[in-house]
Amino acid sequence: MLLCYAPNSRAVRVAWAMEELGLDYEVERYTVGDRNLRTPEYRAKNPNGRVPTLIDGDVTLFESGAIIQYLLARYSDGSLVPDVNSPEFPVYLQWFHYTEGMIMPQMNNLVVETILLPPEKSSAVHAKRATKLLTQILAAVDDHMKDRDYIAGDFTGADFMIGHSVVMSGRMGADLSHYDNLRAYAERIEARPAFQRAENK
Amino acid sequence: MLLCYAPNSRAVRVAWAMEELGLDYEVERYTVGDRNLRTPEYRAKNPNGRVPTLIDGDVTLFESGAIIQYLLARYSDGSLVPDVNSPEFPVYLQWFHYTEGMIMPQMNNLVVETILLPPEKSSAVHAKRATKLLTQILAAVDDHMKDRDYIAGDFTGADFMIGHSVVMSGRMGADLSHYDNLRAYAERIEARPAFQRAENK
Repeated sequence: MLLCYAPNSRAVRVAWAMEELGLDYEVERYTVGDRNLRTPEYRAKNPNGRVPTLIDGDVTLFESGAIIQYLLARYSDGSLVPDVNSPEFPVYLQWFHYTEGMIMPQMNNLVVETILLPPEKSSAVHAKRATKLLTQILAAVDDHMKDRDYIAGDFTGADFMIGHSVVMSGRMGADLSHYDNLRAYAERIEARPAFQRAENK
Repeated sequence: MLLCYAPNSRAVRVAWAMEELGLDYEVERYTVGDRNLRTPEYRAKNPNGRVPTLIDGDVTLFESGAIIQYLLARYSDGSLVPDVNSPEFPVYLQWFHYTEGMIMPQMNNLVVETILLPPEKSSAVHAKRATKLLTQILAAVDDHMKDRDYIAGDFTGADFMIGHSVVMSGRMGADLSHYDNLRAYAERIEARPAFQRAENK
């Protein structure tokens, strides 16, 4: 398998999943905003010129949630996903999907305003609004994490999505000062050796 | 089951899935931006005060992708989801997740600027940028839909997500004039009786 990867991007989630699953994979390394992501060769793999992209034989996928669900379905032997009829299953789904549905749209806006746009086009008002919304959206995750180590019982695939987005939210300036549960969760994620390896591919 | 619903929201996707699956459900009706979504009673179901929310016995879910994956896993008897080892399975996942990962963040920004913000706080520059990005992001879906009626072979659960977002993109002002495949796909979706029922709950 080949993973098109950049540090500090959603590709870290995918590398982390592959590390936890013990999968063999090659890495093609880029940076966020890399001009090499805009070449016709790269766009043939991923039409929007972003990372991650996973190539597994005939299969090409370029959406982190899709890649992680795919890897778990084909390569986890049933581990890291709660049984469909267990009480943890809906919890797993809720927070797996909350990542891209609620957290990342605010993170995207923040990254656009603070990193991607040239200063003359960026807006401090919009950056501030995105940071405030990102912080607000994380309140529900902090409540959920009360008395929990991981999102849905034991460590699961939902942690790849939301764990990574919580860590990145803190680094990007979301205010976690009132979110004791989330700060502890982020530390727990960052302490995992597979997460550390994934951040440094 | 109880579905907290508003017309012209992501709740339509969920109602559509329930209609296609032939499930019995009650509807609690709201409107987008409804003050009744901000009450403590409603926030006990959904801390962010949005729709959809699904309540199924002890289970409460409030993310459309999670709800649809949940309904399919527990109530579809294996229909509407390609077999894990079929070539359609990764295709199904790719476009299921593309909806919230790529399309809806632009749609959210467009709705914020054109509907939710008061005129003195909204920005024509940002509305225009969101419309342009939304149109660009749909190019990959249009390419994918060449010679296809539905996203992943026969009609599947991925169509609930992306079919609804394509229909809504056109209505919100995305420029579909060069996307012949998408316009035909949107018409195919809108012609389904279950979709029509879901829009009018």
